[in-house]
Amino acid sequence: MSKARLEAFSDGVFAIVITLLILELRPEEGIAHAREMILRAIPKILAFVLSFIVIGCYWIAHHRFLHHFKAVDRVLLWINLALLMVVAFIPYPTALIGATHGDVAAVQLYGFTLMLVNLLGTTLWLYGTRSTNHPEAMLPRQRLRTAMAHAGPVVVYAGAVAIAPIWVVAALACFVAVPLFFVLAGPAIDRYLLGAGKQSDG
Amino acid sequence: MSKARLEAFSDGVFAIVITLLILELRPEEGIAHAREMILRAIPKILAFVLSFIVIGCYWIAHHRFLHHFKAVDRVLLWINLALLMVVAFIPYPTALIGATHGDVAAVQLYGFTLMLVNLLGTTLWLYGTRSTNHPEAMLPRQRLRTAMAHAGPVVVYAGAVAIAPIWVVAALACFVAVPLFFVLAGPAIDRYLLGAGKQSDG
Amino acid sequence: MSKARLEAFSDGVFAIVITLLILELRPEEGIAHAREMILRAIPKILAFVLSFIVIGCYWIAHHRFLHHFKAVDRVLLWINLALLMVVAFIPYPTALIGATHGDVAAVQLYGFTLMLVNLLGTTLWLYGTRSTNHPEAMLPRQRLRTAMAHAGPVVVYAGAVAIAPIWVVAALACFVAVPLFFVLAGPAIDRYLLGAGKQSDG
Amino acid sequence: MSKARLEAFSDGVFAIVITLLILELRPEEGIAHAREMILRAIPKILAFVLSFIVIGCYWIAHHRFLHHFKAVDRVLLWINLALLMVVAFIPYPTALIGATHGDVAAVQLYGFTLMLVNLLGTTLWLYGTRSTNHPEAMLPRQRLRTAMAHAGPVVVYAGAVAIAPIWVVAALACFVAVPLFFVLAGPAIDRYLLGAGKQSDG
Repeated sequence: MSKARLEAFSDGVFAIVITLLILELRPEEGIAHAREMILRAIPKILAFVLSFIVIGCYWIAHHRFLHHFKAVDRVLLWINLALLMVVAFIPYPTALIGATHGDVAAVQLYGFTLMLVNLLGTTLWLYGTRSTNHPEAMLPRQRLRTAMAHAGPVVVYAGAVAIAPIWVVAALACFVAVPLFFVLAGPAIDRYLLGAGKQSDG
Repeated sequence: MSKARLEAFSDGVFAIVITLLILELRPEEGIAHAREMILRAIPKILAFVLSFIVIGCYWIAHHRFLHHFKAVDRVLLWINLALLMVVAFIPYPTALIGATHGDVAAVQLYGFTLMLVNLLGTTLWLYGTRSTNHPEAMLPRQRLRTAMAHAGPVVVYAGAVAIAPIWVVAALACFVAVPLFFVLAGPAIDRYLLGAGKQSDG
Repeated sequence: MSKARLEAFSDGVFAIVITLLILELRPEEGIAHAREMILRAIPKILAFVLSFIVIGCYWIAHHRFLHHFKAVDRVLLWINLALLMVVAFIPYPTALIGATHGDVAAVQLYGFTLMLVNLLGTTLWLYGTRSTNHPEAMLPRQRLRTAMAHAGPVVVYAGAVAIAPIWVVAALACFVAVPLFFVLAGPAIDRYLLGAGKQSDG
Repeated sequence: MSKARLEAFSDGVFAIVITLLILELRPEEGIAHAREMILRAIPKILAFVLSFIVIGCYWIAHHRFLHHFKAVDRVLLWINLALLMVVAFIPYPTALIGATHGDVAAVQLYGFTLMLVNLLGTTLWLYGTRSTNHPEAMLPRQRLRTAMAHAGPVVVYAGAVAIAPIWVVAALACFVAVPLFFVLAGPAIDRYLLGAGKQSDG
C-alpha cells in the first residue's frame, strides 16, 4: 500500500466524518415554529461547531504526521485504521452532548474518545517515525517533542473527564481550550518543535 | 500542506454536503399513498434544488479562488476550514425551510448562513491573494473586483433577512436570484473582472 | 476548471449517492424480531439493488462521455451539475418505492427521474462533443449513435410511467430491463457504436 | 476506464460505507440520561467496531488485488460494482445486530452478506488475474493460494450461519475471529503466499 493511497483514504474518512456531523442537526418533529426549533437546537449547533474544529485539528495533525513517514507497512495501516475508527466514532458522543444538553456521561464519553484519538495519534507518530522509517534529518528530540505535543491534550481531557461530574461547564471548556490553544499557539509550537533540530517541519 | 491536498479535501466536503441534502427527503411515516407523500414533499424538493445550486456555485467559486493562490499556510487553512464548516451547515437551514414550509426564522437562518459563507469566501480570497501570495500578473483592481463580486450577495441576503418577516416569498426569491444571476451573468462578470487587467482569469 | 477536477468531483458525488442508498435500510422500530424486520425490508432491499445498478450504469456512462471531451467550459459545468443533482435525487423515489411497496406515484416519480437523468446525460454528451470540443477522429454518425443509445431508455421509462397505473409490476420490470440490457448487450452496443467509425471508443 | 479511476471510485465507496456505520449510533429518544443511552448503545457500539474492522480488511484486500491486475475491462467493472454493492449493504445487517442485540436472523443475514463479499472478492481476484491480465511473474499456485485465502472465510461464515440458531455468541465469535486471524496471521499468510513463488507480493 502506497502512502498516497493511505492519505487519500484517510482524507476521505476525515471529510465524511466532519460533514456527517450536520446530520444530527435536523428539524425536530412536533414543533410548529422554526424559531423554537432553532433555539432548542443551539446545544447541538455548538456541539457541531466544537467537533468540526476538533476533527479539523486531527486532520491537520494527521497530514503533518504522514508527511514525515518514509513508508507504510501493515502495522502502520492497522494503527491508522484504529485511529480512523475512533475519529469516525466522534459524531456519537457529539450527538449525545447535543441531545442531552451536556449530560455528565456524554461529556465523559466525549473526553474518553478524544483521549483515545490522541493516544492512537501519538502511537501512529512514534511507530511511523521509528528509526528505519523517519527522514535522516529528524533528530530524536524533535520526534519526542512532537509526540509530547500530541499526547499533551490527553492530560487535559483526563481532567475534563474527572471534573465533569462536579462542573460540566469546566469540562466542556477543556474541549474548547485544546483546539483553541493549537490554533492560536500553532506558530509558537512550530518554532519550539523546529528549535529541537535545524530543518523545516514541512 | 500542499494546495492539491487542500483542494481535494475541500472538494470532498463540497461533494458530501451537496449529496447529503437528499437525506432530508425521506418518505414520511403515517401516510399511505406515495402521491400524498410527494405532494407534501414539494417544499423540501424545492429547498433541495435551491441548496444544491447554491452549494454548486460556492464550489465553483472556491475552485476559481484556489487557482490563484500561490501557497497555503496555516491561516489560510483555518479560514478554509471555517468556510467548509459553514457550507457543511447549509443542510440544516435547508431542512428547516423544507420542514416548516418557509417559516420566517428558517428563512432568516438560511440568509445568515449564506451571508457568512460569502464573507468567509471573500476573506479567503483577500488573504489568499495578499501581496506575497498572488500571481505577479494580478492587478490590485482585479483582486478587489473579484472580492466585491463575491461580497455583493451579502447585501442581497441581508435584504432577504430584513424582508422575511413581512414577505417570506420575496426573501426566498432573493436566494433564488443570486445563483440565477451568477449562472446567467457569468460570462459578463468574467469579462468585467478580466477588463480590470490584461490576462486570463483561468 | 480542469476536466480532471470535474471528473473527481462527479465521481465523489456518484460514490456518495450510491452508498447513501443503504441509509433507507434501517431496522424498523416496534418490531421484535430481526426475521420479521428483514422480511418486511425486502421491497427496500430490492429497491436498493435496483438503484445501485442504475446509478452504477450512469457512473460508467458519465466516464465514457467525459473521456471524449476536449475541454470543460461554464455551460458544460452547469449541465453536469444539473445531471448530478438529478442523480443525487434518485435515493428519494427509491425510498418511496421501498416504503410504499411500489405505489403507482412512487414508480412514476422514479421513471420521471430516470428520464431526466438520461435527457441531461444526452445533453451533456451532445454539448461536450460539439464540433469545437470533440476529438477530430469522431465522426458525426458516431456522435449521434451514442446520443441515441443514451436517449433510448427515455422511451422505455416513458412507457413505464404510462403503464404504472394499470400494471405496476410491468413498470418496475422496465426499470430492471434497461440496466440489464446495457450490461448484457454492452459489447454489442460498443461494436455498433464503433462500427459507425474506424477508431476505438476508449 | 483506467485502473486508477476504478481504485479511486472503490476507495470512495469503502471510505463512505465505513464512516456511515456511525449513523446507526444515535441518541435514543425517550431516555433522559446519557449514561443509560450509552449502556443501551453498547451492542450497537460493538457492532460498529466489528463492521469497521471487517470493512477495513476488505478494503486492504481490495487494494492488494487491484495491485496485480494489468487492465480493467467491462466484466471486471461489473464484478467490482457487485462487490461494492454487497459491501455497501453491510451497514444494514450491522444495524440489525445492534438493534436486536444479536437476534438469530440478524446474525445469519450478516453471515450471508460476508460470505457473498468473500465469494465476489474471490471472483474478482480470479477474473482479474486470468492468464491475459496477470503479471508474468505470478505463478498459478500463487494465484490459487490467494484465491483460497480469500475464499476460506466463507467456510467460517457458513459455520456461523449454521450455529447461530443454537448458540448466537459462537456465531458472533466467528465474525470476530476472521479479521483477528488476518490481522495477527497477516505476516505468516504473506510468507505462505510468497513461498509459492519467488517475487514480492507488493
